[in-house]
Amino acid sequence: MDVTRTLARYVVASRFEQIPAATRHHATRTFVNWLGCAIGGSQHEALDIAIAALGPMAGSAQATVLGRSERLDILHTALLNGISSHMFDFDDTHLKTVIHPAGPVCSAILALAEHQPVSGEDFVHALVLGVEVECRIGNSVYPNHYDTGWHITGTTGVFGAAAACGRLLGLNEQQMVWALGIAATQASGLREMFGTMCKPFHPGNAAKNGLMAALLAQKNFTSSDRGIEAPRGFAHVLSTKFDPQEITARLGETFEIDLNTYKPFACGIVIHPIIDACIQLRNEHGLTGEEIAAVTAHVHPLVLELTGKKTPQTGLEGKFSVYHSAAVGIIHGAAGEREYSDAVVRDPKVIALRDKVTATRDDSMHEDQTLVEIRLVDGRVLGKRVENAIGSLARPLSDADIEAKFRGLASDVLPQEQVERVLGLAWKVAALAEAGQIAAAAARAG
Amino acid sequence: MDVTRTLARYVVASRFEQIPAATRHHATRTFVNWLGCAIGGSQHEALDIAIAALGPMAGSAQATVLGRSERLDILHTALLNGISSHMFDFDDTHLKTVIHPAGPVCSAILALAEHQPVSGEDFVHALVLGVEVECRIGNSVYPNHYDTGWHITGTTGVFGAAAACGRLLGLNEQQMVWALGIAATQASGLREMFGTMCKPFHPGNAAKNGLMAALLAQKNFTSSDRGIEAPRGFAHVLSTKFDPQEITARLGETFEIDLNTYKPFACGIVIHPIIDACIQLRNEHGLTGEEIAAVTAHVHPLVLELTGKKTPQTGLEGKFSVYHSAAVGIIHGAAGEREYSDAVVRDPKVIALRDKVTATRDDSMHEDQTLVEIRLVDGRVLGKRVENAIGSLARPLSDADIEAKFRGLASDVLPQEQVERVLGLAWKVAALAEAGQIAAAAARAG
Repeated sequence: MDVTRTLARYVVASRFEQIPAATRHHATRTFVNWLGCAIGGSQHEALDIAIAALGPMAGSAQATVLGRSERLDILHTALLNGISSHMFDFDDTHLKTVIHPAGPVCSAILALAEHQPVSGEDFVHALVLGVEVECRIGNSVYPNHYDTGWHITGTTGVFGAAAACGRLLGLNEQQMVWALGIAATQASGLREMFGTMCKPFHPGNAAKNGLMAALLAQKNFTSSDRGIEAPRGFAHVLSTKFDPQEITARLGETFEIDLNTYKPFACGIVIHPIIDACIQLRNEHGLTGEEIAAVTAHVHPLVLELTGKKTPQTGLEGKFSVYHSAAVGIIHGAAGEREYSDAVVRDPKVIALRDKVTATRDDSMHEDQTLVEIRLVDGRVLGKRVENAIGSLARPLSDADIEAKFRGLASDVLPQEQVERVLGLAWKVAALAEAGQIAAAAARAG
Repeated sequence: MDVTRTLARYVVASRFEQIPAATRHHATRTFVNWLGCAIGGSQHEALDIAIAALGPMAGSAQATVLGRSERLDILHTALLNGISSHMFDFDDTHLKTVIHPAGPVCSAILALAEHQPVSGEDFVHALVLGVEVECRIGNSVYPNHYDTGWHITGTTGVFGAAAACGRLLGLNEQQMVWALGIAATQASGLREMFGTMCKPFHPGNAAKNGLMAALLAQKNFTSSDRGIEAPRGFAHVLSTKFDPQEITARLGETFEIDLNTYKPFACGIVIHPIIDACIQLRNEHGLTGEEIAAVTAHVHPLVLELTGKKTPQTGLEGKFSVYHSAAVGIIHGAAGEREYSDAVVRDPKVIALRDKVTATRDDSMHEDQTLVEIRLVDGRVLGKRVENAIGSLARPLSDADIEAKFRGLASDVLPQEQVERVLGLAWKVAALAEAGQIAAAAARAG
């Protein structure tokens, strides 16, 4: 079975009209969510470092580093925007494989779209196809590949970026086969790097290397014809499981981007049901925090294992504290990047409420479930049970939620008027004559 | 055991005076051999393609693409020179691991040496350390890592390039740890790509990515502290065998570059003893080819398995023909890249002799052995037994052999006077005030 060729043929032959309207809208949601994350993450020290280190080697000002004033060549820009977008671990998640699909694909195609004219339709189409390629390859090797220690966003992302860019570059079938092969032989990224700047580096590097693969293939740089499925190809070398059907079955009939999800909260997914319950209670009862005597959350065992930090001292530690997370849910009605700043973690009002939170292990809970009970000073007890946290496939974020998340992230970086302009462009990306204008619109004044 | 830190500490603390004179000379031989291969390979279509594809994204003219007129930023230059140097598969070999050590390391440090002043001593020192790092890491995971399907020159080369560049950039111990970690998370390159342009792409990409790792680490881009040895680090994820002692034992006392070898012939190593015997017989008896009635080579079984092509039609096919190889050994007294050109493979005189060559499987032969018998038209029989082929560790190429090889490769690309000038500079690299001048001297007039 020529898996690589089958995939290449599909990517080359697909027509935009074959993408269902709902899938196109999913792609737009993925793009808006990604763009907000990239702008929001753009001020991180890791970006300053990468630009200081690599800027002197970069090419001409072809593309925009989102949320910043620098313009670099498209390869470096793809790297940098990919880093930004995964900086807060707040980007999209393909829950079946824990791939963060947009980082590698959007970072690559948006940079490319500033270098050559790309219509909004072609952009959305390439995004759908890129995500399809990376997630199908992910499905074929998951979970063994991930369990071995590979950061699957990096290893499969390079294929997604290559396919999407290859599509925009007009590769023929053989060139697309080569692009996937050149991607295969660059597949990399270790889970050992989690907790360091190398984690967000992975989707950035996948974007850059996938774009490079497509550029090389466009000029007929040769590669294996069976980069994915050969005995010494990607799947067998990097995984103990390979199910080629996951790549080829119903290709063009189902769309993995339909299964993409968006985090409402800037922390590990296990705390999401608890925050969700707290925000619901807050909004239903107009809570501010002072009226509360105690908060008890009945939680899946993983919550205490992963996020049991009682007295976090920094924003980053706050992300690993179910106590802090519950407190900001009630006081701020949100748990975005801002609620995990050092300042909020050290806010006496937040600390006072945090210290009233108890989390109780409940083995009957599944990972997406919780029951939160709040006892008020006046003796009343309020309760909220969550069966599926907001942001899950069962309870996806609304477009308005994604917009609110975008504003929360981008308005720390860009003036409000500019945030609204970029947001407006991003929602109507499929209708634009040139998708690249969105990147230029998201630059920060120099 | 902190393997990564131990290695980083050694690379940072090593002093040039601690490198034995013989080891320095081995490094110089490695450099001269690599430089000849890179100049010789520089006219290949793969280079034209890579430059056409990536040149528009490249940065300023910081460094020299060897044997060509283009000047690009140091990252792209490292990539391109790494591709050139492995284009003919004629570069150096660390026989214990089949790593081609120079490609990743020399390509990276020579580009860097054009961007910042690097003395010849520092250059040779960095080369010794880079090869030490890549080959020790290779030793620790070989053969399982290679057997899994990894092109070990790519996967370990990125560490070598990172270490060598990190040394030249003056990284401190922690930064060197990070550089090795950033290298670890980019380790890639599949054996599936053998026979395509992606094979020489691997050392080039390793050079570029290792250099990038060092540049990032210099600005404190963080990574794991245990990129090599952690449960989800390089060794455990990419190999089923890991012997950390191979990395840490006798560090600074033994030098892997002492074990480097140089191919005298531009073909697979299994044919080398046969060519060696043929050239010896030619030289001892003044053979030209016409006086020969039959040639019989008694060979290790692998020779027929890998190089049994009876009637090669192209230069590339000639490399997989023991018959063609024996014929050019006798007629030309050489089997360099030129003797594997399409023209020589199609030369009637070569074909006439080739058709008189028989190879007989002899299970008593080890891989480096052969007995070649030549029956002359006049009835005499000449015989030559080879126990270790020229170029093996037991019978290394002399400096004069390496020089002849350099001239053979470079004189197809550069004017003779320039070839001699570059060769003279390369032999005295350790004494130069600025090693980077060698690259500039090896540019082709625009």
